[in-house]
Amino acid sequence: MKRSFGSDNHSGVHEKIMVAILRANEGDEIAYGEDKFTEKAIGDMQYVFGEEARIFFVFNGTGANTVAIKSMTRSFNSVIASESSHLHVDECGSTENFCGTKINVLKTPDGKLTPELLEPLFHGRGDQHRVQPKVVSITQSTELGTVYTSQEVRALADFAHGKGMFLHMDGARLANAAAHLKTGLAEVSTQCGVDVLSLGGTKNGMMLGEALVVMNKEIVSELLFFRKQGMQLPSKMRYISAQFRALLRKSLWKKLADNANKMAGLLAHGVKDLKNVEIVYPVESNAVFAKIPKDKIEELQKHFFFYVWDEDESIVRWMTHWQTSKEDVIEFVDKIAEVLG
Amino acid sequence: MKRSFGSDNHSGVHEKIMVAILRANEGDEIAYGEDKFTEKAIGDMQYVFGEEARIFFVFNGTGANTVAIKSMTRSFNSVIASESSHLHVDECGSTENFCGTKINVLKTPDGKLTPELLEPLFHGRGDQHRVQPKVVSITQSTELGTVYTSQEVRALADFAHGKGMFLHMDGARLANAAAHLKTGLAEVSTQCGVDVLSLGGTKNGMMLGEALVVMNKEIVSELLFFRKQGMQLPSKMRYISAQFRALLRKSLWKKLADNANKMAGLLAHGVKDLKNVEIVYPVESNAVFAKIPKDKIEELQKHFFFYVWDEDESIVRWMTHWQTSKEDVIEFVDKIAEVLG
Amino acid sequence: MKRSFGSDNHSGVHEKIMVAILRANEGDEIAYGEDKFTEKAIGDMQYVFGEEARIFFVFNGTGANTVAIKSMTRSFNSVIASESSHLHVDECGSTENFCGTKINVLKTPDGKLTPELLEPLFHGRGDQHRVQPKVVSITQSTELGTVYTSQEVRALADFAHGKGMFLHMDGARLANAAAHLKTGLAEVSTQCGVDVLSLGGTKNGMMLGEALVVMNKEIVSELLFFRKQGMQLPSKMRYISAQFRALLRKSLWKKLADNANKMAGLLAHGVKDLKNVEIVYPVESNAVFAKIPKDKIEELQKHFFFYVWDEDESIVRWMTHWQTSKEDVIEFVDKIAEVLG
Amino acid sequence: MKRSFGSDNHSGVHEKIMVAILRANEGDEIAYGEDKFTEKAIGDMQYVFGEEARIFFVFNGTGANTVAIKSMTRSFNSVIASESSHLHVDECGSTENFCGTKINVLKTPDGKLTPELLEPLFHGRGDQHRVQPKVVSITQSTELGTVYTSQEVRALADFAHGKGMFLHMDGARLANAAAHLKTGLAEVSTQCGVDVLSLGGTKNGMMLGEALVVMNKEIVSELLFFRKQGMQLPSKMRYISAQFRALLRKSLWKKLADNANKMAGLLAHGVKDLKNVEIVYPVESNAVFAKIPKDKIEELQKHFFFYVWDEDESIVRWMTHWQTSKEDVIEFVDKIAEVLG
Repeated sequence: MKRSFGSDNHSGVHEKIMVAILRANEGDEIAYGEDKFTEKAIGDMQYVFGEEARIFFVFNGTGANTVAIKSMTRSFNSVIASESSHLHVDECGSTENFCGTKINVLKTPDGKLTPELLEPLFHGRGDQHRVQPKVVSITQSTELGTVYTSQEVRALADFAHGKGMFLHMDGARLANAAAHLKTGLAEVSTQCGVDVLSLGGTKNGMMLGEALVVMNKEIVSELLFFRKQGMQLPSKMRYISAQFRALLRKSLWKKLADNANKMAGLLAHGVKDLKNVEIVYPVESNAVFAKIPKDKIEELQKHFFFYVWDEDESIVRWMTHWQTSKEDVIEFVDKIAEVLG
Repeated sequence: MKRSFGSDNHSGVHEKIMVAILRANEGDEIAYGEDKFTEKAIGDMQYVFGEEARIFFVFNGTGANTVAIKSMTRSFNSVIASESSHLHVDECGSTENFCGTKINVLKTPDGKLTPELLEPLFHGRGDQHRVQPKVVSITQSTELGTVYTSQEVRALADFAHGKGMFLHMDGARLANAAAHLKTGLAEVSTQCGVDVLSLGGTKNGMMLGEALVVMNKEIVSELLFFRKQGMQLPSKMRYISAQFRALLRKSLWKKLADNANKMAGLLAHGVKDLKNVEIVYPVESNAVFAKIPKDKIEELQKHFFFYVWDEDESIVRWMTHWQTSKEDVIEFVDKIAEVLG
Repeated sequence: MKRSFGSDNHSGVHEKIMVAILRANEGDEIAYGEDKFTEKAIGDMQYVFGEEARIFFVFNGTGANTVAIKSMTRSFNSVIASESSHLHVDECGSTENFCGTKINVLKTPDGKLTPELLEPLFHGRGDQHRVQPKVVSITQSTELGTVYTSQEVRALADFAHGKGMFLHMDGARLANAAAHLKTGLAEVSTQCGVDVLSLGGTKNGMMLGEALVVMNKEIVSELLFFRKQGMQLPSKMRYISAQFRALLRKSLWKKLADNANKMAGLLAHGVKDLKNVEIVYPVESNAVFAKIPKDKIEELQKHFFFYVWDEDESIVRWMTHWQTSKEDVIEFVDKIAEVLG
Repeated sequence: MKRSFGSDNHSGVHEKIMVAILRANEGDEIAYGEDKFTEKAIGDMQYVFGEEARIFFVFNGTGANTVAIKSMTRSFNSVIASESSHLHVDECGSTENFCGTKINVLKTPDGKLTPELLEPLFHGRGDQHRVQPKVVSITQSTELGTVYTSQEVRALADFAHGKGMFLHMDGARLANAAAHLKTGLAEVSTQCGVDVLSLGGTKNGMMLGEALVVMNKEIVSELLFFRKQGMQLPSKMRYISAQFRALLRKSLWKKLADNANKMAGLLAHGVKDLKNVEIVYPVESNAVFAKIPKDKIEELQKHFFFYVWDEDESIVRWMTHWQTSKEDVIEFVDKIAEVLG
């Protein structure tokens, strides 16, 4: 198919990652993480996130988030998350069913939680009739394409820890956030107090695979069992861990995320002066959310694949990824200009 | 590492499957199963299992089993399974936590359920205090290396359907069973009345991936949601479906399973006359269970990797796989003879 | 203690109900609902709700609601409820843990859902990534003391059924709603299309006990098991069913609810002209919600027991019940006038 | 109906308990356990079980057991229980659904677990693929009418604690066990190392109500929330706690249990020489299990109510309770002799 602006999940696998997979395919290896590729990948991850980080490779983002929440909660706890969070909207109730916990949902202007938004939830804490908030879950970069600064993450971590809670980060697109902020992966996540990070690989150019990065020792011993019970323990793990090694090597993750971000910037730049296009959120990673005339959407979708984000408001989402090229963007912008006229 | 006799999960990926993965890596594809590779793979699977079969690709065997059980039960139901079943022993309680259902466990002489073993469980059916059995789950080939004949599967299907129940088959090693019986995959599973089949790919030479093959229409519409809620919906699904296409093409699955089975046969043949080795289950697929002197186990494990199956009884499990060679087996047999001497 | 304005749960048991309990205490009776008192109570309930109604007695309101939701949903479904609903706020996540379902929460001006409020939730229905709404749950009378008219309930039932969903009513205070509307219990619940009703007894003058009234045949056979699994099957059920018989006899429920409602009306009347009191919701049942000066709350609580409803907004809840007398109200009003005065 | 030999749940409420209920019915009391009756009942319970005991009143035995297990486990844990345990057989899968945990079931000769029976379950502990045993649950007196001595309970407590596990006791009939052993309630339960006790009231002469007695401080803070989430928090709690006060006063529990036990003894004595009756378990509490000719069961059931325990083995269960009289037993024995004659 033609270049998709539907999702970074529509991208392929980077060549260096594919080579790493091929190289892992030699001889027998013990399953379930006892292989030498996984051992090395854990070492690489600890180089990035610190010696004290504990690493658990899993299959996908929903699995990473759900197992993470399970490890931090009991069923009478709740998770506080944004109304637009993947955890709440796009995981088909995995948290509720697997963990038994409620998600307390907050409206946000731009997908980002703040201590001020959280504060009112803490009345009635300790009352036996009510769920007890235990985790704040944020997404970096957010589902609306915005990015938390390290100060903003730190403020949330301090708030959560002050209440005896954990801070979870859904980092399915952490690479895009770090690339935007021109930092490493840890600087805008674990170094700011995140207790458990769901680190994405798939959207960043891998075939599949995510990693739980756990900074809190209490959680670690139980997580091993929750990963298995959560159907997230890969048997031939070497083929996932080898991908992570390639992604970290010479910061390949950054190069790939940079391209995705730049292409989103180029796209936003290309459409911002079109009279029928209104960009509705700051473009800080690899997504452009635009309000366009409702009656033009279908016509435009005939030429390029993308999703409608908010039917009522006529907002569409255009995503770029590591393979999106300037030519793709220019072609798309031209078509937008033509169709929206 | 040297050839492992620990598990078929220790094997690598067959070259033709790797090529299929590489070929799938071209351009963008819509995620979550809307891609052309998945469409074709579903067609291939329906060619094998029938037009009416509905196919759902998932990550791993535990996920396949758990999602399958969820789709067939309500929480007050129970699943009847053998005491040695993967579902009961090796999935860390995934069924209980994800489905809320009890597993009614039966002792078996050889890992195989029979209508006679099941019958006594049906007293008190309908009593509101008791769980209501809804699924019989069998493993083909079993965790003890034995194989159900098609007649045996059919008898269980008839029994289950006669009680208003479903028959589930954990076919993580269905290929080994079919190879043993010299039939196709459907002939010893869905054609004998299996309602939902967890079809394994990983142990048969794939990198990862299993498929749910659903023959019962009632179950299908809900399964879509349980797969996602069960953290088993791959985003870049093309890389899993492409593997299944390669596995089915020219019955590659059979060639690979045949090798594994033959090597187990060779191994059994090689050790059967050793005075300190007693083979405890019929060798019908790719596993040899042997009782050997307890004090020799560690010494032997220094040379070859394998697991102790039953500590009390001093029974070990030796598994072969698609890559195990005659030379590997001969070397292993020689070492066994030497150590057990 | 002095008369409480904290909750109708603070009331005692009406004398006629106590007599019914005493009369049930004669000789042996089969447990778990096979006794003659339960048989007769079911008959009485069917006289009120119709021959087709199926009746399940349970211990408490949280149990009634949770078992009801379980019977109508699979774990990938969701329940739509008001932000102020008991189900969401005051049941410590029982729905999420026991049913595995998400609650989709809606803000309402007065505790009442409407089809207009519900409509926007139905975008993306059928998408495998998202929970599928299956139940609309309303409270009659609401947690804010307001009452749905029969037309309003009917409109919600039509909306829900039009979407293939069920309508659940938390009728912990259905008696108060019916008394307010001067109708019978069925006229403002099951006769308007409610599929499953949680009918309250405890707040209406019983010692304990609620009843599930089920109008939908699909649900009935499974509910029997969910009640037991949900820890809500009373062994000596006669002592609960006997209470319901007494409550229904000569519409005792109405007399008791009428008193509670009238006392709330009297209270509202008594304070409405006080300058520091603002009544914030229509007083349609047995609760008065008032905004009073934050710094006077504690002083007033020294004299009478009541709860703060909304700390931020300084709103308190004053509840009356079947035992509240005119003298109690007058004493309370005088004290309010004195303290706030 | 005529005296039932079906269950102690078929009995009524003792007069002194009824009086206590009536006395509790005066004026308003705060709900959910903040009332003066509950405060005093907790004091009385602590007098029996020790100052450090924490007491939680709940509705019924299934609720008590399920909430207890939840408080002691995470979903990857398992509970070890006898094949005949109420927890496993008669709670419709409540543990699995509410807690997500597996029950590891052991066959026993007489309903009693021993350290020897438990030991083999501990191979493979720590393996991430397997559930991790965390609770041993025993029933005192057992479902087969046998009684653990204090030494036997202590041995199980030592075993469990030695493995880092908890010991739970289902004491639905603890009174019968204590009466048999001529001790107090604590001497054969918490004083022998039981961590959490489900203390029964209903079968011992109450209307309804059970108590969780928690000796382990770690568990206490969470149990409060699990009770509510588990639908087991009574609103007008005073009517349950008042019953427990009456039951403890002057050891009323003992008098009632003594009668039940004696009547079972009398019954066993009366039938033991009948040629068609074989008593199959020691009669140590209030149940007699007898093997009688299969073709006589229905005839006998026409005269007296009782249950068949094991259809295959033709074993019936005859239970006595606090109201069973000598005359009842003699009449029953005569009828047995006549029918089986």
